Amino acid sequence: MNKQGLKIAVIGGGSSYTPELVEGLIKGYNDMPISELWLVDIEEGKHKLDIVGNLAKRMVRKAGIPMEVHLTLNRREAIKGADFVSTQMRVGLLDARKLDEHIPIRHGVVGQETTGPGGMFKALRTIPVILDICRDIEELAPNAWMLNFTNPAGMVTEAVTKYSKVKTVGLCNSPINFKKFLAEVYEVDESRVLPEFVGINHLHWVTSALVDGEEKLPEILAGEREYSAKNVPTVGWDNEFLRSLGAVPTYYLKYYYMMNEMYAEMKESLEKNGTRADVVSRVEKELFELYKDEALEEKPKQLEQRGGAYYSEAAVKLMRSLYKGSNDIQTLNVPNGGVFDFLPEDASIEINCIVTGEGPVPIMPTHVPEHVKGLLHAVKSYESTAIDAAVTGDRGLALQAMAHHPLVPSVTVGKAILDEMLEAHKKHLPQFFNN
Amino acid sequence: MNKQGLKIAVIGGGSSYTPELVEGLIKGYNDMPISELWLVDIEEGKHKLDIVGNLAKRMVRKAGIPMEVHLTLNRREAIKGADFVSTQMRVGLLDARKLDEHIPIRHGVVGQETTGPGGMFKALRTIPVILDICRDIEELAPNAWMLNFTNPAGMVTEAVTKYSKVKTVGLCNSPINFKKFLAEVYEVDESRVLPEFVGINHLHWVTSALVDGEEKLPEILAGEREYSAKNVPTVGWDNEFLRSLGAVPTYYLKYYYMMNEMYAEMKESLEKNGTRADVVSRVEKELFELYKDEALEEKPKQLEQRGGAYYSEAAVKLMRSLYKGSNDIQTLNVPNGGVFDFLPEDASIEINCIVTGEGPVPIMPTHVPEHVKGLLHAVKSYESTAIDAAVTGDRGLALQAMAHHPLVPSVTVGKAILDEMLEAHKKHLPQFFNN
Amino acid sequence: MNKQGLKIAVIGGGSSYTPELVEGLIKGYNDMPISELWLVDIEEGKHKLDIVGNLAKRMVRKAGIPMEVHLTLNRREAIKGADFVSTQMRVGLLDARKLDEHIPIRHGVVGQETTGPGGMFKALRTIPVILDICRDIEELAPNAWMLNFTNPAGMVTEAVTKYSKVKTVGLCNSPINFKKFLAEVYEVDESRVLPEFVGINHLHWVTSALVDGEEKLPEILAGEREYSAKNVPTVGWDNEFLRSLGAVPTYYLKYYYMMNEMYAEMKESLEKNGTRADVVSRVEKELFELYKDEALEEKPKQLEQRGGAYYSEAAVKLMRSLYKGSNDIQTLNVPNGGVFDFLPEDASIEINCIVTGEGPVPIMPTHVPEHVKGLLHAVKSYESTAIDAAVTGDRGLALQAMAHHPLVPSVTVGKAILDEMLEAHKKHLPQFFNN
Amino acid sequence: MNKQGLKIAVIGGGSSYTPELVEGLIKGYNDMPISELWLVDIEEGKHKLDIVGNLAKRMVRKAGIPMEVHLTLNRREAIKGADFVSTQMRVGLLDARKLDEHIPIRHGVVGQETTGPGGMFKALRTIPVILDICRDIEELAPNAWMLNFTNPAGMVTEAVTKYSKVKTVGLCNSPINFKKFLAEVYEVDESRVLPEFVGINHLHWVTSALVDGEEKLPEILAGEREYSAKNVPTVGWDNEFLRSLGAVPTYYLKYYYMMNEMYAEMKESLEKNGTRADVVSRVEKELFELYKDEALEEKPKQLEQRGGAYYSEAAVKLMRSLYKGSNDIQTLNVPNGGVFDFLPEDASIEINCIVTGEGPVPIMPTHVPEHVKGLLHAVKSYESTAIDAAVTGDRGLALQAMAHHPLVPSVTVGKAILDEMLEAHKKHLPQFFNN
Repeated sequence: MNKQGLKIAVIGGGSSYTPELVEGLIKGYNDMPISELWLVDIEEGKHKLDIVGNLAKRMVRKAGIPMEVHLTLNRREAIKGADFVSTQMRVGLLDARKLDEHIPIRHGVVGQETTGPGGMFKALRTIPVILDICRDIEELAPNAWMLNFTNPAGMVTEAVTKYSKVKTVGLCNSPINFKKFLAEVYEVDESRVLPEFVGINHLHWVTSALVDGEEKLPEILAGEREYSAKNVPTVGWDNEFLRSLGAVPTYYLKYYYMMNEMYAEMKESLEKNGTRADVVSRVEKELFELYKDEALEEKPKQLEQRGGAYYSEAAVKLMRSLYKGSNDIQTLNVPNGGVFDFLPEDASIEINCIVTGEGPVPIMPTHVPEHVKGLLHAVKSYESTAIDAAVTGDRGLALQAMAHHPLVPSVTVGKAILDEMLEAHKKHLPQFFNN
Repeated sequence: MNKQGLKIAVIGGGSSYTPELVEGLIKGYNDMPISELWLVDIEEGKHKLDIVGNLAKRMVRKAGIPMEVHLTLNRREAIKGADFVSTQMRVGLLDARKLDEHIPIRHGVVGQETTGPGGMFKALRTIPVILDICRDIEELAPNAWMLNFTNPAGMVTEAVTKYSKVKTVGLCNSPINFKKFLAEVYEVDESRVLPEFVGINHLHWVTSALVDGEEKLPEILAGEREYSAKNVPTVGWDNEFLRSLGAVPTYYLKYYYMMNEMYAEMKESLEKNGTRADVVSRVEKELFELYKDEALEEKPKQLEQRGGAYYSEAAVKLMRSLYKGSNDIQTLNVPNGGVFDFLPEDASIEINCIVTGEGPVPIMPTHVPEHVKGLLHAVKSYESTAIDAAVTGDRGLALQAMAHHPLVPSVTVGKAILDEMLEAHKKHLPQFFNN
Repeated sequence: MNKQGLKIAVIGGGSSYTPELVEGLIKGYNDMPISELWLVDIEEGKHKLDIVGNLAKRMVRKAGIPMEVHLTLNRREAIKGADFVSTQMRVGLLDARKLDEHIPIRHGVVGQETTGPGGMFKALRTIPVILDICRDIEELAPNAWMLNFTNPAGMVTEAVTKYSKVKTVGLCNSPINFKKFLAEVYEVDESRVLPEFVGINHLHWVTSALVDGEEKLPEILAGEREYSAKNVPTVGWDNEFLRSLGAVPTYYLKYYYMMNEMYAEMKESLEKNGTRADVVSRVEKELFELYKDEALEEKPKQLEQRGGAYYSEAAVKLMRSLYKGSNDIQTLNVPNGGVFDFLPEDASIEINCIVTGEGPVPIMPTHVPEHVKGLLHAVKSYESTAIDAAVTGDRGLALQAMAHHPLVPSVTVGKAILDEMLEAHKKHLPQFFNN
Repeated sequence: MNKQGLKIAVIGGGSSYTPELVEGLIKGYNDMPISELWLVDIEEGKHKLDIVGNLAKRMVRKAGIPMEVHLTLNRREAIKGADFVSTQMRVGLLDARKLDEHIPIRHGVVGQETTGPGGMFKALRTIPVILDICRDIEELAPNAWMLNFTNPAGMVTEAVTKYSKVKTVGLCNSPINFKKFLAEVYEVDESRVLPEFVGINHLHWVTSALVDGEEKLPEILAGEREYSAKNVPTVGWDNEFLRSLGAVPTYYLKYYYMMNEMYAEMKESLEKNGTRADVVSRVEKELFELYKDEALEEKPKQLEQRGGAYYSEAAVKLMRSLYKGSNDIQTLNVPNGGVFDFLPEDASIEINCIVTGEGPVPIMPTHVPEHVKGLLHAVKSYESTAIDAAVTGDRGLALQAMAHHPLVPSVTVGKAILDEMLEAHKKHLPQFFNN
């Protein structure tokens, strides 16, 4: 790495999240001096890039640090010689997300951005674009680390690992949120808690929760403590189920363990307020209005409602540890290696790691509940098949991925969804229509 | 083994299937001389045992072979010194099966004897009884082979392997049926075909179909041949799906791949004709009427409608190969060992084996489709958890098994079914109500 | 395959073994009609090729079958469209073998053609040549099976599997010899015995010996039977050791388990009679004198002294089973897959297989003694490293292979042997001297 | 744990090492308050226990901390309610060690305390005694951690894991020494270096050496730095070998990679000075003379010559991290789990771990050289077999262990050593002579 001053390229730099990342980089400047921050976006995003980029410049100026902020549509220029490339993009923008959410629901299936048929189509659209970026990184910044926030983060990261030489780590804010919850409940500093995450992105189980070395999980599962904490991860679950499970499932597991209820809720909500895409669309509009204000020189409070809390913190922590070789523990999406002996070696998993200067190194999980292995494997089988479909444009593989997704109730339904979604997203899926 | 003459004990000897087995033993007598055949049943089955047992005696007498047929309610006497013990039983009889089929359907879930909540409860009732029999075998016939036909055959066999020292093999007629289908379509002798089965009992995929060493699977999947064969295993499937799957799924996989359709069909059929249990009940009544006829000295044609074609052939073939050390290929339920590296070593799998005099030895599968591994693992995770629940009577484990069954759409539904079925089968589930 | 008539290419067709193979092909003609037999050799072997090829023609003529025998130095012509390609070659001829045997002995290490530094150098010389042949097969006969007899057969076969697309099987006569021994001792037909082989080429253990389904191994290990059989595989071993080992080691394991004694014997023998290469050299000379005799129309008895008994039988059996899809059991060198979970998936192992029309399929071993796993793994580590050295010409890899060979007592000794042998074989090791 | 004040029992408390441990406990008192330190020994060690125990009392008194020091021959009393039990013992004392070193050398084999036949016999004598202690711990202090320093530490730890329920960790000072070397060479604090250890006790390879996140291993292997450090771990190795190995082997690997040279050196040294046991015997005598001095109130400088530098530091660090749940990285002997997929799950390995309050958790290794796997597995096979021999007293298993040890050149030699050593150590090996 450029020990004098790092170069960071942010693909999808016009995102409404960018001020959060910039804030993090400013706060961490002393530990990790960044001399160049490149915000890149595509033509359609130029307007947003200008707004958010100018806010970033004002924030840096106010902080009084020598970090150059560059705004560009030239991806290759941004990537060239970078130490870190972060990606946060949405191929097809919110319109595509809307389709991902609406179409499955019409067929009686969960419609969601990162799981189910919606997540699958986000992957089909995104993976070819990401791999195209990887070609640039391989050529122009072969030693760079790619930090991937783009959802479905696990699948995208796995695709990069399998189909490129780029060094990559996938990131999600869910683990850091649980850690903060744990610290808050037990009123200790985050450094004194160690939750154990077992699984893959958006499908993990917390199987241990140490506070000063003591196991607090049974207490948490039993709901024996009064929580002042926000975002309590056990709310909404059947407590008897949690106790015999012996783990806290991530929120996203509700799509599996409470499929009926989640579907009903989604359907009702869609009828009332539209889907999550519609909500986000409104929030973003408001945010960009705020960002335009030339007097604004810091991240506005309202950004927190956008969701994605602590994404920036997670990203900055990771970059710093890679830069300094901190050997601290972070929860990341990395290749399985031999961690889970029932999953392929190149599968992306979400797991506690030591972050050395050479990259994240998994810590072996201490508890892997026997009864969740099958579900974990089932989702991973779907993911791996979908990734191959994304890369090859093979319709048969796409059908297999869809038919084997645990949320899809039959081949017939899966096929109907597949047909409709392929057609709806045609513009962004050239690999399926090129011959 | 007693090379002079074998002793066979048939637990559940009063079953309507018994004449088929007796026919097989008579036909195979030259290769495998049986001197004693013990038909055992419980008090409630005495009436049926007498009827079917007397038919068996008439059959043997007519054949003119020196095979003693014993009818008894004394299980230990029957087991003592046996070379083979076969089990074919239904704890709770057809009434219990009716509950297994009806209750889940009421909750919107497939109601079936061997899979879903119905199969789970059949396992919960059966496993303790089978393990009790194993205690007798360990003591009275430690070298005997137990041939297990009792459904769910995979789970029952796995329970015996895990919780006893009895040497056991699980048997299903589904593989032998496919083999016969293949031979019929290609108009060759069975000895010239070699289908490959990958999976577990009632959840396997045929991943190769060699005829005289040539791979015929693509042809079969494409439906390119006119079949005169009965029971064509590709009928009712989406052909595009089969082709991209690259395998013929067993009929039972329709409960997974076509869950919606199968549920709808079951529900409708239940309203019209009652469930399968009701049908079987009627057929059995008729069969026993026939069996009573003192003039009857052979297996009546009508038995074939009962289902379970070739069960007897499968059983006799297995016994003979174990007896003679034939080293021929049969498809059996055996412990996984390292065959599938993503399943536990002690999991029961259904796989092609060489049958030596020391037992079946798995042949490595040549094709294991990546995209089915997850589903296979998911069902196995459920099975292993359910087996442990059956042995321990732990309600939490039962809930975990139910909640992780791929056909159960949510924890809430699973719990409701669990509660209702535990109560309904209370009499046959002492392990759950003893403390 | 060409079901009308097969084409076979024999690389190294001028070998003194060829008449044995020809005899086998003639005997098996009814089951497997061969229309073309191509014997290929290199320029230096032309003289021998002519002699042995003419004998082959006389043998075929006498048999009165329509099999064309072609003699050629044009390898590509021979390979083109072949159904089977067999390889039996010695790069550097017997002179090179002499060096393989002499040099290590001078350094205090076993000097042998297939194991130790000698075997390693045979592999280093042979693998590039074999891979060159593979290039031709990939282009000119992509569906052909390559039957590899060339020693060290396990390493050569592994190299082909790893570095080419050619379908290959490695063959050794050691398993078939044990099978014949077993049948002879128990006075039954070979079809009634089933020994189990666990390990890799020239490093296997017989861990079970079934005769009509009964385990005879304890009896054999205890030496409880009087053998009239020749080549008794337990002779020369410490019986107490064999009993606690619970397996019959292959003869080649004496180089490991009785290293001191074998070394001493070799050294003494070398001083008296020269090495095995010297003996073979004399025998071959005599054989070719016999072959020249125009009156000779069959394989001469004296060929049996040459060693390699039943090689031809093994080869013909394998070809026939691949051709017909016999699904019979043969012991072959194939990729490990998941058979031994402690060895790499692409490692070549020697194991009982079912031979289908699509190739050999391993049968899972039933007994793998814990205490031999390490030795097996140690030799395999050496082999894999040596194969990579052969392909890359990387001297560092060659040093690692040598240093990790269990028969090499120290890095210093290994390095001295490496230096001397690289120099001595320089002509045949261009990959190590090209830059 | 007793958060108010811990109880520690030191089995073999009369060891000359004890003052070092006591010093460590005193220094770490603030972080980890120990209220009771029990030094236990056997009758034959009472004299030493008194001397060293009184020194310990003087040291504690001088430190002015409220730690009670108890001296006892009553092991059960010492263990009762302990939080930590450490073991450092030598069954048969130095006389037995002398035999372990002398006998193999007479047979031409390395004679060493922890590897080869000597290490094996130390294990055979020690394991039953350790398991006896475990019985006490299971009963009297079921939650205690056993810290095992007793050599061969890997084997003893594995035996405890396999044959008891005691929570145990094995400890060696070799990793901490390498870490200190690395910090010294690069002139940084130990907290900034992270060497990676791959292997088992006394048989590991350092496969990465990060300093502030940068990989320094190539530099170290190439000998490119001038070291002021003592105990340079690359001295005495062939540099070409190290470079192609890509790892720094532990000193103990010289017994394997440089067997000839090490044997020669040992033999010569034995003739001149006796073995290591003789040297240690003299050093210990001198140490106890010093310890007797009532004026001595601290660990004397001379103890450092005894060897075993930093043992105490390693022990105290481990106890503190278990006590506080520090989640820091330490190199420990723990069960393999799935870390090395080619070794049994219950094999003891030496690996970097996170030390949580629930115990050490392995970090996955990032580099495992393919070519060393076999040697590692070979030694582990020997170890596991020897452990089973120690527990069962099965002479056949002992012979298998001996015959499969890579340093034993033949079964004949192994058997001769086995016979002689069994006889020589008869008194301490009742399990082999009881029937």
